[in-house]
Amino acid sequence: MNITQLAENIKAGDRRSIAKALTLVESEIENDRLDANKLVERIYSPQKNCKKIAISGVPGVGKSTLIEAFGSQLIKEGMKIAVLAVDPSSPVTGGSILGDKTRMETLSASDMAFVRPSPSKGTMGGITKSTREACIIFEAAGFDYIFIETVGVGQSETLAHSIVDCFIMLHLPNSGDELQGIKKGITELADLIVVHKADKDNLTLARAAKTEQLRAASLYHKSTPVILVSSTEKSGLEELQIEINKYFESGDTTESLRENRRLQQNELWFQEELAESFSKWIRQSPATSDLYKNLLQDVITGKKAASTAATKIISTLRTAE
Amino acid sequence: MNITQLAENIKAGDRRSIAKALTLVESEIENDRLDANKLVERIYSPQKNCKKIAISGVPGVGKSTLIEAFGSQLIKEGMKIAVLAVDPSSPVTGGSILGDKTRMETLSASDMAFVRPSPSKGTMGGITKSTREACIIFEAAGFDYIFIETVGVGQSETLAHSIVDCFIMLHLPNSGDELQGIKKGITELADLIVVHKADKDNLTLARAAKTEQLRAASLYHKSTPVILVSSTEKSGLEELQIEINKYFESGDTTESLRENRRLQQNELWFQEELAESFSKWIRQSPATSDLYKNLLQDVITGKKAASTAATKIISTLRTAE
Repeated sequence: MNITQLAENIKAGDRRSIAKALTLVESEIENDRLDANKLVERIYSPQKNCKKIAISGVPGVGKSTLIEAFGSQLIKEGMKIAVLAVDPSSPVTGGSILGDKTRMETLSASDMAFVRPSPSKGTMGGITKSTREACIIFEAAGFDYIFIETVGVGQSETLAHSIVDCFIMLHLPNSGDELQGIKKGITELADLIVVHKADKDNLTLARAAKTEQLRAASLYHKSTPVILVSSTEKSGLEELQIEINKYFESGDTTESLRENRRLQQNELWFQEELAESFSKWIRQSPATSDLYKNLLQDVITGKKAASTAATKIISTLRTAE
Repeated sequence: MNITQLAENIKAGDRRSIAKALTLVESEIENDRLDANKLVERIYSPQKNCKKIAISGVPGVGKSTLIEAFGSQLIKEGMKIAVLAVDPSSPVTGGSILGDKTRMETLSASDMAFVRPSPSKGTMGGITKSTREACIIFEAAGFDYIFIETVGVGQSETLAHSIVDCFIMLHLPNSGDELQGIKKGITELADLIVVHKADKDNLTLARAAKTEQLRAASLYHKSTPVILVSSTEKSGLEELQIEINKYFESGDTTESLRENRRLQQNELWFQEELAESFSKWIRQSPATSDLYKNLLQDVITGKKAASTAATKIISTLRTAE
């Protein structure tokens, strides 16, 4: 694959090249991974104006519907938007925990938008990596907004939080108390909270939910904005836009908080890449490949503690060094 | 610290030494980590009869109460039981997402039980490591049951699932539909399901919840046993014991599934230990420590892609090799 050409095409915003690059970064084939690394090296250029936003919430809360409604408004204003769905395969069956998803019909049909469904398989680590690299592709291609839709089961939130600038949590108007307990850890992650499906018929419940969310946020000493939105009635979308802008354009304190988050995210990214490259090295190096296989057997059969085996690998590499 | 002596004392079941060792494996001080590794190397001896069981569920479902009631029954039968609470610090504030916890008064007062609260701080990786090592300590000290109480927010479930043999999920009788959606990913992890607080007054709701849980499990083609338990009325505890025994003593299929899970857990443990040892190496090696610092700066400030920087570190180590 001509990576130089692919990189140029992406920077020019060519949709076919973007699609090709997304498939490349999702691949787990060794040669594709090398190409993906080369591509990332060439196109990587963080843009301050590219807003990476997670949209999270339980199944049925209307994440896709919100992205469709809000995204359609953004493209009318001339913004280019990308949507990535992150639906980590379940640890046990490898199956999806999402049911059928709402299609984003307007967005899917628009030249200003690029909707990418979740990779259908892969480990959390693999999904994190490909999602991060997908963001780098969209950033290089000049997208203004990247929405990452996550499924609301904890793992994918943590993943999204390690990638995005702004985390938006969606709630239903009729969430019960017990449910709030579960979400505490996630509520804490939220930069903005949307009480969704706040339709006219539903306003009393929605306002009560807003009060409850404000109270929950205050438990964490946060003054997270809570916005009522109905995507079907197109209400609250402007307020959402205002709050997002405020979040991104706000004064020094928020700016530096956000900057700080980016630094942490980049550091985590480095650790993950190092671990992956190292793992590849010890499996491929003549000095350790057999040793690794033997120690792995000893560890998985319970003959050796993993810490003991890991120390042995490192000392072998150091002696060879 | 005399690690040889400490190891002997642990094997003899000395409580003070166990407590000392638990503190050691929770420490993040470099010298303590080295001692912890030595200790683990000395005492590591997986016991087929040691049952590692996760007790999971939302705050308020009564995890501690169940462990207190069930554990008290087990110690009457002469079993030695350990309880570890895992409450990962929240990613944002570092604070606890649990409120005040029920004290396990009977267990705490018994010589046959050892109750260890969660480490108050640390990364998920650090908590995983210390929890795994705590299990190794209890296993070496001859405990029959190790209960790991997790907080029910996804991350800690994944952690527990990577350590225990049997995952027990607690539900309340009155869980709503929306809540079930959130829990799908977790329901799938469960080997046994307990509908808790199934008090006499609550039996109709509890039975309905049981039906619902059986239906949910069947969605994953699982026939997970669902047991009604009231810890306050001491009902269902015998059935729970029977189902746990069945789970652990059952025929070849379950045995090999469980064996397979242990193998996977050990492999993951090895990967985690390798990543940690490697990270320490590159930060300490003269060949890479400065390079690492510079590259880290480039990555966190967005000048270099992490994959590019990681490749550079590995190639430097390989050249030195």
